[in-house]
Amino acid sequence: MTKYVYLFSEGNGSMRELLGGKGANLAEMTSLGLPVPQGFTITTEACTRYYSDGETIGEDIERQIDEYMEKMEGICGKKFGDRKNPLLVSVRSGARASMPGMMDTILNLGLNDEVAAGMVELTGNPRFVYDSYRRLIQTFSDVAMELDKRRFEEIIDEVKATKGIKQDIDLDTEDMKTLVARFKEFYRECKGVDFPSNPKDQLMAAVKAVFRSWNNPRAITYRRLNDIPGDWGTAVNVQSMVFGNMGEDSGTGVAFTRNPVTGEKKLYGEFLMNAQGEDVVAGVRTPSHIDTLADTHPEIYKQFSEIAQTLEKHYRDMQDMEFTVENGKLYMLQTRNGKRTAQAAIKIAVDLVAEKMCTKEEVIMKVEPKQLDSLLHPQFDPEALKRATPAVTGLPASPGAACGKVYFSAEDAVMASTERGEKTLLVRLETSPEDIEGMNIAEGVLTVRGGMTSHAAVVARGMGKCCVSGCEDIIIDEKARYCVINGTRINEGDYISIDGSNGNVYIGVIPTVAATVSGDFATFMGWADEIRRLKVRANADNPRDAEVALKFGAEGIGLCRTEHMFFEADRIKAVREMIVSSTVEQRRKALAKLLPMQRSDFEGIFRVMAGHPVTIRFLDPPLHEFLPQEESDIAALAEEMGLDVAELTATVKSLHEFNPMMGHRGCRLSVSFPEIAEMQTRAVIEAAINVSREGLNIVPEIMVPLVGDPKEFHYVRSIIVRTADEIMNETGVKLDYHVGTMIEIPRGALLADEVAREAEFFSFGTNDLTQMTFGFSRDDAGKFLGDYYSKKIYESDPFARFDSFGVGKLVKIASELGRSVRPDIKLGVCGEHGGDPMSIDFFEKEGLDYVSCSPYRVSIARLAAAQAALRNSH
Amino acid sequence: MTKYVYLFSEGNGSMRELLGGKGANLAEMTSLGLPVPQGFTITTEACTRYYSDGETIGEDIERQIDEYMEKMEGICGKKFGDRKNPLLVSVRSGARASMPGMMDTILNLGLNDEVAAGMVELTGNPRFVYDSYRRLIQTFSDVAMELDKRRFEEIIDEVKATKGIKQDIDLDTEDMKTLVARFKEFYRECKGVDFPSNPKDQLMAAVKAVFRSWNNPRAITYRRLNDIPGDWGTAVNVQSMVFGNMGEDSGTGVAFTRNPVTGEKKLYGEFLMNAQGEDVVAGVRTPSHIDTLADTHPEIYKQFSEIAQTLEKHYRDMQDMEFTVENGKLYMLQTRNGKRTAQAAIKIAVDLVAEKMCTKEEVIMKVEPKQLDSLLHPQFDPEALKRATPAVTGLPASPGAACGKVYFSAEDAVMASTERGEKTLLVRLETSPEDIEGMNIAEGVLTVRGGMTSHAAVVARGMGKCCVSGCEDIIIDEKARYCVINGTRINEGDYISIDGSNGNVYIGVIPTVAATVSGDFATFMGWADEIRRLKVRANADNPRDAEVALKFGAEGIGLCRTEHMFFEADRIKAVREMIVSSTVEQRRKALAKLLPMQRSDFEGIFRVMAGHPVTIRFLDPPLHEFLPQEESDIAALAEEMGLDVAELTATVKSLHEFNPMMGHRGCRLSVSFPEIAEMQTRAVIEAAINVSREGLNIVPEIMVPLVGDPKEFHYVRSIIVRTADEIMNETGVKLDYHVGTMIEIPRGALLADEVAREAEFFSFGTNDLTQMTFGFSRDDAGKFLGDYYSKKIYESDPFARFDSFGVGKLVKIASELGRSVRPDIKLGVCGEHGGDPMSIDFFEKEGLDYVSCSPYRVSIARLAAAQAALRNSH
Repeated sequence: MTKYVYLFSEGNGSMRELLGGKGANLAEMTSLGLPVPQGFTITTEACTRYYSDGETIGEDIERQIDEYMEKMEGICGKKFGDRKNPLLVSVRSGARASMPGMMDTILNLGLNDEVAAGMVELTGNPRFVYDSYRRLIQTFSDVAMELDKRRFEEIIDEVKATKGIKQDIDLDTEDMKTLVARFKEFYRECKGVDFPSNPKDQLMAAVKAVFRSWNNPRAITYRRLNDIPGDWGTAVNVQSMVFGNMGEDSGTGVAFTRNPVTGEKKLYGEFLMNAQGEDVVAGVRTPSHIDTLADTHPEIYKQFSEIAQTLEKHYRDMQDMEFTVENGKLYMLQTRNGKRTAQAAIKIAVDLVAEKMCTKEEVIMKVEPKQLDSLLHPQFDPEALKRATPAVTGLPASPGAACGKVYFSAEDAVMASTERGEKTLLVRLETSPEDIEGMNIAEGVLTVRGGMTSHAAVVARGMGKCCVSGCEDIIIDEKARYCVINGTRINEGDYISIDGSNGNVYIGVIPTVAATVSGDFATFMGWADEIRRLKVRANADNPRDAEVALKFGAEGIGLCRTEHMFFEADRIKAVREMIVSSTVEQRRKALAKLLPMQRSDFEGIFRVMAGHPVTIRFLDPPLHEFLPQEESDIAALAEEMGLDVAELTATVKSLHEFNPMMGHRGCRLSVSFPEIAEMQTRAVIEAAINVSREGLNIVPEIMVPLVGDPKEFHYVRSIIVRTADEIMNETGVKLDYHVGTMIEIPRGALLADEVAREAEFFSFGTNDLTQMTFGFSRDDAGKFLGDYYSKKIYESDPFARFDSFGVGKLVKIASELGRSVRPDIKLGVCGEHGGDPMSIDFFEKEGLDYVSCSPYRVSIARLAAAQAALRNSH
Repeated sequence: MTKYVYLFSEGNGSMRELLGGKGANLAEMTSLGLPVPQGFTITTEACTRYYSDGETIGEDIERQIDEYMEKMEGICGKKFGDRKNPLLVSVRSGARASMPGMMDTILNLGLNDEVAAGMVELTGNPRFVYDSYRRLIQTFSDVAMELDKRRFEEIIDEVKATKGIKQDIDLDTEDMKTLVARFKEFYRECKGVDFPSNPKDQLMAAVKAVFRSWNNPRAITYRRLNDIPGDWGTAVNVQSMVFGNMGEDSGTGVAFTRNPVTGEKKLYGEFLMNAQGEDVVAGVRTPSHIDTLADTHPEIYKQFSEIAQTLEKHYRDMQDMEFTVENGKLYMLQTRNGKRTAQAAIKIAVDLVAEKMCTKEEVIMKVEPKQLDSLLHPQFDPEALKRATPAVTGLPASPGAACGKVYFSAEDAVMASTERGEKTLLVRLETSPEDIEGMNIAEGVLTVRGGMTSHAAVVARGMGKCCVSGCEDIIIDEKARYCVINGTRINEGDYISIDGSNGNVYIGVIPTVAATVSGDFATFMGWADEIRRLKVRANADNPRDAEVALKFGAEGIGLCRTEHMFFEADRIKAVREMIVSSTVEQRRKALAKLLPMQRSDFEGIFRVMAGHPVTIRFLDPPLHEFLPQEESDIAALAEEMGLDVAELTATVKSLHEFNPMMGHRGCRLSVSFPEIAEMQTRAVIEAAINVSREGLNIVPEIMVPLVGDPKEFHYVRSIIVRTADEIMNETGVKLDYHVGTMIEIPRGALLADEVAREAEFFSFGTNDLTQMTFGFSRDDAGKFLGDYYSKKIYESDPFARFDSFGVGKLVKIASELGRSVRPDIKLGVCGEHGGDPMSIDFFEKEGLDYVSCSPYRVSIARLAAAQAALRNSH
């Protein structure tokens, strides 16, 4: 019979898949002899069974739970539901991967009227007991029974109003009893039955609620954003309760073995005396720094420090621990590898190697590549900052600077960003898991309440998003959509700027600049570069981007999009002239105007890249993208170009496409208008020759986009080769250059052997390849992808995470076919997937030669490539 | 050294690839001892060399031509360019496949002033000699030197005007001399040099011109329409001239061993005395029936009849022969398997088997499947015809009836058809190869001049297009765009009706009806059915189409598109109600209205198909296709539906898609709105149960469109199975049904093994699969496919001819993957390629189970499937 339940003393830290992260670590701490309130873990397999059995808990599982509850009672020396010696338990989710706050927790299970009375006798603390009791009813009703939790808050407010008090802390024992009674009454109204007094019923309902919470919408969103598979399921931890709210000798806290913001090697954390864990995490009260515990409770501090060291050494990583002190006795409730800022992650990694705790290879695997993003995120322009004065200061919860229009709800921020393309800042009293989409889309997050470990802070750090938390000087009215910062009223849509590295908040706009990276970062990235096999290039269309790319460690340009140059103000006119040409001669004339501009663009890029490879893609978008579409704009253009309005309107109309993504673009333009390819070849080759004369070794790579047929590639390549030969004859200079193609059309991939007979390299254009292979366009898929996530058909956006399952098959086919006729063919990737770590893992496995991504993602790609190399060398 | 030139006496009929059809047949006739003017053939390989050598003739080839010219002189006992005993030659193209009139011919090569003078002495016929000479200059200048041929006609008109004569025949010797002089003068003006008097120069220029003509635009178009590969090249036949225009004892003609229109076993043809071949083919003079030759020249007729029989027995097929009589002596200039109408093809095939000349398998291969189309083409409605009187009658050049708006140029007809979707009739004085696109697009062709073997007649029969030729009673002014038929002026755009089976021309509209097929046709198709392995189904969306499909021999319905039913007037309202629903409840309400309508549709189809398989595809197009797009229409709809205009406008807007082809359609609709799939399942299953109760064995096949992921298919299939189970529970009837998918998304093909775990059948939707695999949409590709043809990147429209090279690879992959997990998976095709013979050949090779095509193409598919089976059994 399958074992679905494990005592903490039966498991260990390696059983994360079965017991979840929290369960495995509780077991591991137990085996290390640390003071852990005992209990048992119901496995992730039980959760999977729950779903495959149609959302019911099988009898065999229920029997095991009963059995282990008895064992637990034996270990704790208390009895669940017993009046005289009651065992109270918490029920907490715990998935393989940490999903903080995404799933449900219920505390104080095992309380009912009788047990409460018994506990009053035992503790002599009736207020505590009835406070715990009303919390149980409140949470249980919300989490397990899905009653409206706002009604409970209203009842509390009503009781407070009757008594004329403001703070929960001022509610006395009688008030708590009133709350218990009124909560039960509301429960009965809603459910038609009494609140379950049988602890066993409470427990089973709580376990089910945790299983169910695996598939609540915010958990699904979180998994999608964090690439956690939906079929893992969550474990459930049933743990004996300890109480941090039993008086001034009790408390609860969260601490890290090193500073999660800076990486400094020093115990870092917060605690609240006379409080339960939820008070710390929810950010309702602002806690004290862990250091103060050394003064107030030195023995506890000492014991905790030692445990922290033990755990860090044991796990060989920075730990994030939860603890509770009950009547002077320390209990460890959880430990896990701590989330940290990118800056801290790098410092800790470098320190762990220096301390000989880890090898370079080990620490390379400890840093999440996506996190590096925040290091490369903008900081305030130092000059502009000199002139700025912070209006208020909060906690520096997640580093980086941000500037945007203020919105007071996640929905409003999402709407402003997606519909109006605004840069937004989310300003909230405090955030909750419902805000996760809004936080993801905003430039930064500012909260009025909550500490460094509040929801906002933890989530923002995970996202690499700038966050200032606990900025209590701000007066906020979320409903009326305004706040007051240092006396200034800020309405929705007004600009503010925040700095998550120091907690400063500024009114108005402060421009931001990119960060520079050196020191530990350079050391760490150097290790990554030693380890990785995949080359990393950047997508850059101009000398400025090329410089940034080089600075971030790019080894070449994998995609230089020539059309971006076409949009610049000084050349769009010539481009339009070319498009509206009705004869080849007119078109050649317009192209002749573009030639010197393109040539000098390429010269600039070649100079910056100083001999590193540069891949230049020929004109790709459909021509109508360069023309105005509105009547008035067309009329203005006609006037400017001296054309007949009707004629120009007809031209614009004739260029209309039903499916622009599948229209006249890419190399199809070169087939129709070979003179465009001639001009672009001339610009590339002449620029390369000119810059070569300055002493640089330039070997340009010309990339033909959207190839779907070997003859099509042959045709365009012939134009390129003929033109290049002409130029070399004219100039008497012999220049090496390569001609290759993008593989972004399924047919190009399927016929890659034929294409490779003439193509010297392939660059997988995974954006288009994904569109064509899935048969949906990126612009239109938004309408239905949400349904695909919620119905668990797709778990991630195939445009962000490379689909190794389907599109990957085409990449594999094309790579094999290409190599079959040209064993040394160079294979790269230049879609946006080139900067996505999980996608990079696939490209490493396939043995591609390089990935190319946006300059700001180069560091991520370098680290991801190193991790992929390590992962695939095992 | 490669042999590039063959004497007629060196080759034989099996050397078609090397010598072309004409060359191989001339050699074969020579070896049969028939009277053939001797000469040599320059091979198709020489043509290929010509192109690979940059459009030049290699020295080695030129040396061989010289050598063989000497041999030919020896055989003919004449000398090329010799004044006393001159050899004159014709130079004719001859590709592997017959391309009548598409490429160039030059006659009378070897004439110059001196030779002409010599010939006058030899023949005593100076008018004939100078007529031949001026024809040489005229054709050579046009064909080999690309001078404007209209100028030559003008010169002739000027000379005639000076002399006050109307007919060419009235030009005397002096006039011919004048023409020679003025033609030469014009030549010198244009080219700056004299007309080449050296016969060798004339010959080489003519050979080059023929090679070049392989790639003239009309030849490229012809090849594309007839699926002839562009890399075959043409051979060149250099043949000693014989003259049908040496007087009343000379003549020239074309004849068939059987009637090419009806198939009747009787010599059939036309001849003109005192004429050259071009006079017959060009349709300038109307020739006499071959029977009259029996009266006027009985020995020649007898000799020709015997030769005709010899050739037909030899080739075991109906022959199309060209002959010339020179001073009473018969020469055979060409024989080939004759083009024939579909009706004739069937009759000849059945007769050849009855005559024991061929086996069933052999005659199955002799009929071009596409031709059957014309048999199934509409005839006039007999009732309407009773009330109609023919205004005039021409020659019944190609059978079938047609009715359309008159256009007097191919360009106008093309424009009217493509831009305004009009049904057109092309009315011309006579057609020429330039008209081929217009003939292809028109419903029928009517010419004023030309016989049964004129260009119009031959080409129309090849196309299976209705044609009336030689209708000399019509007065036509093509430039002014009108004609006068029996006193009635017909302007461009007026309707006429023509019957190609009897030559009748009617003014106004006569409705047409589909043909019925039986007799020889049924016999022949029965043989095809015995031979073929592939099943043939039809695409049909309603009982009417299903009936037609059954009549044409369909073995089931491979594609029943449910959305076509949605557009019908009585249900579009409910469909729109469904679309604009903002809640599931509203949508269910609208769907409930559609259910009985869909159910009764399916009942109707099931009844007609009486147990044959029916595959029903669920809703496929994006929802916006069902809504109006124009402002005024939206307003009207809002009024009708009692909706707010702004709200409805917003709904329409929100459904807009950037790339509708890659948008929210197919099974994506079922994922977003499972209630649509539920309703459609209910309609199918309930209909099947109802009709089963009538005693028919109905096993519906439900087809999920646009599947790209196994989980997606699983999701939709689950809805179908759950709903079907519900209905079976409700009704207590157990019904067999199958659920399968279309494979039309590349990813679906790549993951076909995963999809096949649950899919019981695949139907390849080759239209969409072609779009996605090529990465271009059918609606947009028109803009650039022309460039791809002219640049020889693609040789045929991938939407008409299945791309076995690229898309075929995906079909192969999907078939293999599908069978790997489900060995008996049923594989079909329901794109338009299912009715295309060359595509069917590929599907046979891949071992698919069936093809499905439009009802009118079922016969074609049956024959093509039989041919494919024979071809692939070798």
